[in-house]
Amino acid sequence: MPNWLLPENIADVLPSEARKIEELRRLMLDTYRLYGYELVMPPLLEYVESLLTGAGQDTDLRTFKLVDQLSGRMLGLRADMTTQVARIDAHLLHRNSVTRLCYAGSVLHTRPSGLHATREPLQIGCEIYGHAGLEADAEVQELALASLALAGFVDVRLDLTHVGVLRALLAEDAKARQDEATIVALLRAKDVPGLREQTKGYAAATREALLALPNLYGDIDVLTRAKEVLPALPGITKALADLAVLAASALGRANVAVDLADLRGYQYESGAMFSLYVPGLPNAVARGGRYDHVGEAFGRARPATGFSMDLRELARLLPTAERKHSIRAPWGNAPELRAKIAELRKSGEVVIQSLPGHDIELDEFEYDRVLVLEEGNWILKNLG
Amino acid sequence: MPNWLLPENIADVLPSEARKIEELRRLMLDTYRLYGYELVMPPLLEYVESLLTGAGQDTDLRTFKLVDQLSGRMLGLRADMTTQVARIDAHLLHRNSVTRLCYAGSVLHTRPSGLHATREPLQIGCEIYGHAGLEADAEVQELALASLALAGFVDVRLDLTHVGVLRALLAEDAKARQDEATIVALLRAKDVPGLREQTKGYAAATREALLALPNLYGDIDVLTRAKEVLPALPGITKALADLAVLAASALGRANVAVDLADLRGYQYESGAMFSLYVPGLPNAVARGGRYDHVGEAFGRARPATGFSMDLRELARLLPTAERKHSIRAPWGNAPELRAKIAELRKSGEVVIQSLPGHDIELDEFEYDRVLVLEEGNWILKNLG
Repeated sequence: MPNWLLPENIADVLPSEARKIEELRRLMLDTYRLYGYELVMPPLLEYVESLLTGAGQDTDLRTFKLVDQLSGRMLGLRADMTTQVARIDAHLLHRNSVTRLCYAGSVLHTRPSGLHATREPLQIGCEIYGHAGLEADAEVQELALASLALAGFVDVRLDLTHVGVLRALLAEDAKARQDEATIVALLRAKDVPGLREQTKGYAAATREALLALPNLYGDIDVLTRAKEVLPALPGITKALADLAVLAASALGRANVAVDLADLRGYQYESGAMFSLYVPGLPNAVARGGRYDHVGEAFGRARPATGFSMDLRELARLLPTAERKHSIRAPWGNAPELRAKIAELRKSGEVVIQSLPGHDIELDEFEYDRVLVLEEGNWILKNLG
Repeated sequence: MPNWLLPENIADVLPSEARKIEELRRLMLDTYRLYGYELVMPPLLEYVESLLTGAGQDTDLRTFKLVDQLSGRMLGLRADMTTQVARIDAHLLHRNSVTRLCYAGSVLHTRPSGLHATREPLQIGCEIYGHAGLEADAEVQELALASLALAGFVDVRLDLTHVGVLRALLAEDAKARQDEATIVALLRAKDVPGLREQTKGYAAATREALLALPNLYGDIDVLTRAKEVLPALPGITKALADLAVLAASALGRANVAVDLADLRGYQYESGAMFSLYVPGLPNAVARGGRYDHVGEAFGRARPATGFSMDLRELARLLPTAERKHSIRAPWGNAPELRAKIAELRKSGEVVIQSLPGHDIELDEFEYDRVLVLEEGNWILKNLG
């Protein structure tokens, strides 16, 4: 086996792709900053106890573990940055006020989430701590949509759901509550026969509501249908009202859909959740939602809502940026030549000095001009 | 032990520090681009055989290893990106022409290189492949100096050395050649008594030259002294002439020093080497040099020279950037308010919407202005 092959679902990012990723990264972080989000950089490695606090079993299984030579303790390579940022909010910044944080960094997965998925996503995202109201959810949703708009996506679908619906139903029914994990799995799979079987002994109202959920998806009218079909429990009424507000705030920026059985992340989410879809990719490119309990796991309960996405995957969907044109200059230390090159670079031009013996090589940079000496002056000449 | 403590020599980067790092990263990558260096992003994880090809034993010991669930093979977390970029040049780009590449990413070390050193440096650097001449070394040295100038360092020292001096001496003396590793260690430690002991049975000329090396450090006049003291072997004459050219090209940009016994990296370097020092830090902040043999290890010999540095360490030495002032805006969905906020953000202003109930909180962003409604218009008012 040649010694330069990479592991499965691990890849180098070559120049044209790297440039797209770098440009998107900057555009997005700049936008988050304009909204008041401060950048943090959590470490790649932590003690597993810390890294997996507040994370689900999925994350545990996706986390590479290794032994720390210095302490003899087990370390984990981060598979997700959300709990790290919650830890920073809870224990490092330790503010009582609203805190807005953003981040961008690589995470690693022991197994890819799909056949062609990378095991090294470049996770970028925003989190807002300290505000339990819907305004924080709306701001985060707006930023996620703004991120995709910056990347040039015009046809975005926003899928909304709310864990409060199922929570309210289960709170009413102790028997159903015992089967929570099974019910979530059946709802996520939209497995109606399975649900019918599972809910046989439940109270009629619970059963009817649970069986209705898999069909409560579609455009925004689903919210009206849900109000008719589901019991008027305070938790359900509140959840549906929240979704109506969030749907309204996205109007004109995305095609809004509702899917009340979409319970991905039910374990650690606590309110409204959203997923963003773009043409060409069956999976969501961004996910967000409220997860007030993560800070609690660190001993400091703070309302929290945020979103994240994989910049690598996003960049892969975009056309390769038009190559910037550049200038070829001869090698030399003559002060006039050096001054001219410095001046051109200062104005933003890419100037590449040919190294002696390599004058006629072409490389990935497409030169469209050359710097030549004519009558004692360095001037730019266009190339055919 | 609280579950939010981090491992030794591992730390979060909080907002003010993260911002400095992000700004430096952009400034530097933009400059490299203007010189024609293309960005690449090698992976965090590789098979150890690949990752450690062409790397020394030091790197091996500093590399975290773990088992790949998918292949059952051993993976390494990169401790250095230089060999990864050489692999990309050799096997992915596979060009015959001169190739300029740059990179910026985290690397991980099993043990810190010093008491307070981080185990997660943020390595940034440039490499140029395919040109054996001194022009490539000069360009790389210029870029390393430009990087420190961008970071605001004015008092930079450039230490030059050249592995060709020792190589030439050892090529003449089979007995000394057998003790290469010991001699390198003694020279690096400037251990003259040890060298005297070690070189007892060597040819007189070799012994005299080896004993002279530890004293051949100081300003640029060292090159003149070296020419007098060392034997006039072609390899030595060439090395000293190279160093004179590189010293001249740095004049006015750094205080140039020469240290012919500085053989750090002797194992894999093959020509001129440099280290950059700034006030306040005893260790070099950047290192560079020629290492033509790394590509060879990947089955494709290409001349190579480059430099790298740790952006985290560099940022730590810099004063915290003056906090940008920002605008506090009330929460609300009124179209005029939203339009005004969007307009301010578009012009580069940081506008933070207060969330209901949090109007009077102060957080890290120091507001200097507020957006208020007066006589039907949204206007900015200065605070205090």
